[in-house]
Amino acid sequence: MDIFNRRGKVIWLTGLSAAGKTTIAHEMLTRFEQANERAYVLDGDRLRRGLNSDLTYSPEDRRENVRRFAEVAGILRDTGLWVIVSCISPYVAGREQARSIIGPENFAEVFIDTPLATCEERDPKGLYRKARQGEIPEFTGITAPYEPPTSPDAHVRTPGKTPEECAAAILSALSILLEEGVSRTEHPVLKDVQS
Amino acid sequence: MDIFNRRGKVIWLTGLSAAGKTTIAHEMLTRFEQANERAYVLDGDRLRRGLNSDLTYSPEDRRENVRRFAEVAGILRDTGLWVIVSCISPYVAGREQARSIIGPENFAEVFIDTPLATCEERDPKGLYRKARQGEIPEFTGITAPYEPPTSPDAHVRTPGKTPEECAAAILSALSILLEEGVSRTEHPVLKDVQS
Repeated sequence: MDIFNRRGKVIWLTGLSAAGKTTIAHEMLTRFEQANERAYVLDGDRLRRGLNSDLTYSPEDRRENVRRFAEVAGILRDTGLWVIVSCISPYVAGREQARSIIGPENFAEVFIDTPLATCEERDPKGLYRKARQGEIPEFTGITAPYEPPTSPDAHVRTPGKTPEECAAAILSALSILLEEGVSRTEHPVLKDVQS
Repeated sequence: MDIFNRRGKVIWLTGLSAAGKTTIAHEMLTRFEQANERAYVLDGDRLRRGLNSDLTYSPEDRRENVRRFAEVAGILRDTGLWVIVSCISPYVAGREQARSIIGPENFAEVFIDTPLATCEERDPKGLYRKARQGEIPEFTGITAPYEPPTSPDAHVRTPGKTPEECAAAILSALSILLEEGVSRTEHPVLKDVQS
């Protein structure tokens, strides 16, 4: 899959809570920055505190959450950025809507595949514990569904891999070749790639 | 008013429909680009087609429209851009919420002051005509209020001025000095300004 262009793309990381999406997103960001490529992490938790603070975790509001994510990611891409989205986005339909809003040619779906048991063991914010105790309703993987991607553009099984290795695997799967200090326009292989 | 910083600011243009906000915003964008400053126009009509396509023009939805505008402008600023917002934003309270979301130190309110009669005469999209005929409910200036800013950071009375002159007047009022081909960091006056 060749996703090169003069502009960046939206790289959409989906997966369970605590699967490692945001950590991996920041590892990817570091690699883009090292290659003098402008990139940005659009993080679910941050958007939930701001733009999407009016939304609950009901199926309907989750759809709206993902729709807004996609719209904002599209605007950010418009400014010439690579946009790395970290968003549980549990429904196939929601991710397909995101692909449609952003444009299929500019959208890459990446499955951050971490077993539920691992996520629940990590539980960095104690959310799984609360969900099991019934304190958080409609928690993805416990009391709300997670529909895994059926044909993602990249699929990373995280067990046994460091976040750095996961980031590298994603960029490789998406044919995004970044060399330290070499921007895309100067890249020996990529400079002639048509936008 | 000194609004310099390593990052850009949000320059929020408010005014009636057809007041010239978007045209002036693009004139400002050109000046930023000429000075090698990264800037972006966040346009009301565009957001209404995408992110805010679920909103009506009721007072409540207008508030939500402005809130989302402010959240997105804040994210764009986060990426290092100057953000020029073109948004009717008819209520004082809505603009104050925007200032609060973005942070007062990063927000400049600019009143694009064009008399209603002039806007209605221009009527580039035929919206005023439709509003007068009752085909569009709650149209700002006709059947919905516009609350002008009481102490904007810049106030441009557009009659008799070209969009270029309006853009220059705004940048001057906000002490944003741009010289062609000279970026902020290289600017003889500005390079030592603390971020």
